[in-house]
Amino acid sequence: MSPPSLDFVSLRAAYASGSADPLGIADSVLQAIAARGDDGVWIYRVPENEVRQQARTLAALPESLRSTLPLFGLPFSVKDCIDIAGLPTTAACPGYRYIAEQTNLTVRKALDAGAILIGKTNMDQFATGVVGVRTPYGVARNPFDPAYIPGGSSSGAAVSVSAGLCSFAFGTDTGGSGRVPASYNNVVGLKPTLGAFSRKDMVNASRSFDTVSVYALTAPDALAVFRQCSAVDPHDPYSRPVPPDAATRPATGPLRIAIPSAGTLEFYGNDAAAALFAEGVAALESEGHQLTEIDFDVFAATGRMMFEDAWLAERYAAVGGFIEQNPHSVDEIVRQVILGSARFSAAEAFDSVHKLKENVQAIRAALAGTDLLVVPTVGTVYTIDAVRADPLATNATNGRYTNFVNMSDMAAVAVPNGFLPSGIPMGVSFVGPAFSETLLAETAAAFHRARVGTLGATGTRHPDLLPA
Amino acid sequence: MSPPSLDFVSLRAAYASGSADPLGIADSVLQAIAARGDDGVWIYRVPENEVRQQARTLAALPESLRSTLPLFGLPFSVKDCIDIAGLPTTAACPGYRYIAEQTNLTVRKALDAGAILIGKTNMDQFATGVVGVRTPYGVARNPFDPAYIPGGSSSGAAVSVSAGLCSFAFGTDTGGSGRVPASYNNVVGLKPTLGAFSRKDMVNASRSFDTVSVYALTAPDALAVFRQCSAVDPHDPYSRPVPPDAATRPATGPLRIAIPSAGTLEFYGNDAAAALFAEGVAALESEGHQLTEIDFDVFAATGRMMFEDAWLAERYAAVGGFIEQNPHSVDEIVRQVILGSARFSAAEAFDSVHKLKENVQAIRAALAGTDLLVVPTVGTVYTIDAVRADPLATNATNGRYTNFVNMSDMAAVAVPNGFLPSGIPMGVSFVGPAFSETLLAETAAAFHRARVGTLGATGTRHPDLLPA
Repeated sequence: MSPPSLDFVSLRAAYASGSADPLGIADSVLQAIAARGDDGVWIYRVPENEVRQQARTLAALPESLRSTLPLFGLPFSVKDCIDIAGLPTTAACPGYRYIAEQTNLTVRKALDAGAILIGKTNMDQFATGVVGVRTPYGVARNPFDPAYIPGGSSSGAAVSVSAGLCSFAFGTDTGGSGRVPASYNNVVGLKPTLGAFSRKDMVNASRSFDTVSVYALTAPDALAVFRQCSAVDPHDPYSRPVPPDAATRPATGPLRIAIPSAGTLEFYGNDAAAALFAEGVAALESEGHQLTEIDFDVFAATGRMMFEDAWLAERYAAVGGFIEQNPHSVDEIVRQVILGSARFSAAEAFDSVHKLKENVQAIRAALAGTDLLVVPTVGTVYTIDAVRADPLATNATNGRYTNFVNMSDMAAVAVPNGFLPSGIPMGVSFVGPAFSETLLAETAAAFHRARVGTLGATGTRHPDLLPA
Repeated sequence: MSPPSLDFVSLRAAYASGSADPLGIADSVLQAIAARGDDGVWIYRVPENEVRQQARTLAALPESLRSTLPLFGLPFSVKDCIDIAGLPTTAACPGYRYIAEQTNLTVRKALDAGAILIGKTNMDQFATGVVGVRTPYGVARNPFDPAYIPGGSSSGAAVSVSAGLCSFAFGTDTGGSGRVPASYNNVVGLKPTLGAFSRKDMVNASRSFDTVSVYALTAPDALAVFRQCSAVDPHDPYSRPVPPDAATRPATGPLRIAIPSAGTLEFYGNDAAAALFAEGVAALESEGHQLTEIDFDVFAATGRMMFEDAWLAERYAAVGGFIEQNPHSVDEIVRQVILGSARFSAAEAFDSVHKLKENVQAIRAALAGTDLLVVPTVGTVYTIDAVRADPLATNATNGRYTNFVNMSDMAAVAVPNGFLPSGIPMGVSFVGPAFSETLLAETAAAFHRARVGTLGATGTRHPDLLPA
């Protein structure tokens, strides 16, 4: 009998019926990882005996305790810029490696809820990039076509879910690292509101805008992890409580959804991508939502500030000292991008802070009267060769629809929308105000079911679409 | 018959009884200004015929309209870094002078409420300083002793109220400019929560922490201006609505009041100042409040960040370009302070942003379980000669108890506490969370009545202390 799909609904049903148990799932995950060979997904793997030991411990729990563990028996991975006590953190830079002393609170809450840690995943070094190729650990293999990038920076995280190796994965998201790989891997990426997940015990990319993020096969699965793992961290000054209604507000009835106007949509000549997005928009309309075109230029201009003005120097503040001291330990493009920010003065930084504040006001004005915004997660897709040929432009292009989101204190759920003729998936992102995760995830879930029936690259059907 | 005290209670009573009218008040204010001669208070005075015309217009209103104007017939001044359409703004730098095209919303709301504009007041140039001597327009004369500084940067604003020339004055406050002159002039300074008053149409000092502020003879007067003039400015991205209860929450019953511990209080060898503060604390205890000592070091360290680390470069962002182009137009100390910030990089600026966030978390933790904090407004007082002899150290000293407040998103009301043997007044500041203005002002009002019976330098009694 083949193992169950790792989506939460299927796996929980298998556990409940007794057709699967945690040790069997651990074994099948370990076998699947071994079968893939060197796939570039992992920077650190939990030793197999320790994975099995986690599973055995869970299997030994009485039913009364199992039912108190919301993530019981769900295998998961953690991006390698997030600390887990006793394990190495590299942020995809071997020279930066250290053994973490603390476990990030978000990860700790997943472990405490019964999830099974499989390993730590590959990424664009220092989370600088949305392409997944800026790493010395090999490019995480895109499960749809190895010629294509996996997206980044949370490349291994998304592939670990898409390839059926994990039920969920923690990535991070500063400018799109929690969403772009969702598009390239036909999975869901939930980027929480800044402050909902602790940003302590992780390697910062750009500290004002960093968050841990969630990859899963379905939006309800991602939302379940958000609800379980969001928490105020008294040691993180950016931590914010999730208001109670954010975790409960349902997406009842038709919504007013903003979309970029035709004149401000950009697919970089990829007509199939444009057509796919148009199909997605038509699907939203046919579900009864009311769509309103908005001018996307201020959103795109805001996003460009992340890499084109003094905000870039936040990355220098995070790891610039290390790079200056260890230039040859660092990916050439990452080094060039981050050290390039040394040209900005403190006065320019404060100018950028205020300019952003003004842009955010314009963004809020543009979205007034709407419930959420839908954008293509990426405007086009790239092969590894295309990215290597023009590393900066391709990276900027793939961040067009994602960079502004943390900068404007919004939440997002990236969700599949279908496939290009090349067989590469593409998604859309639902973007809403801070703490709109429930509304976004429920809207995304309905869209996902309507648009794409299979989960990730697993070939299995969406559990809600299976016969009961 | 001598004109009435310009405090709101006395002046309103005089208007109501018919013993005074706006034109008579305007005339007496103009006479008092003329009698003082060149007192360094004004950078621009509204021509006398225009002051009288404002008064005549108000006097001509029927009673039914007068009663709709909350600031009817109250003479006021505006610090010369705040724009009033058609009038010059200099920020105390003649070379920087321009004719304003817009009126700052806070000022506009005062005018719309029936207040009478007298003129624009002197200040430390570019609002950089808390001493009041960094100006080419002469030092605003301290009405208690011309050998002493008036405090700054809103020097003219505070003197205009203390000397009985205005009922209230708009200053600004970044690091203490709305409070230090209150102490030197025996008046009240209300520093609103950031965002309650528009910071559009003014010359920024350090844009993250700037606010317009209010000087008045009593705390209820200052609170009345706050309530009337706070408003969301749709053109100011930092604007925030005042929550309804902030304007109504009363200071009922005893409060839990934090004070700096003995080991972290600093009076710079001024034993009389220490004794005066101790008397104020004893008065609070005798009113039934519960006092708790806290460690003030993190508050002081946070305040020092304003001038000693990259935050200083926000002042360069505001006016550095002008100073670079016009070095000889600028006060030597102001130029030295602001251009000194050019050494900071953008990465250091972001480090400072995050360091501040951490300090604010520590400040909130220190204040947990208390309603508000009381501090000396200044630790000691200086003569003009003392400040000229050591301009940077004296300025830093006088900001010890004020610099942290805007940086930690708190509100404050500075209020008189008594007089030193030299005859120079000293005050205390009540400091509380964002939007605690009502609680602060009501607590300050009770303290003021208990501690000091006369208003400003006018010699008139506090209206609540007069026989009915």
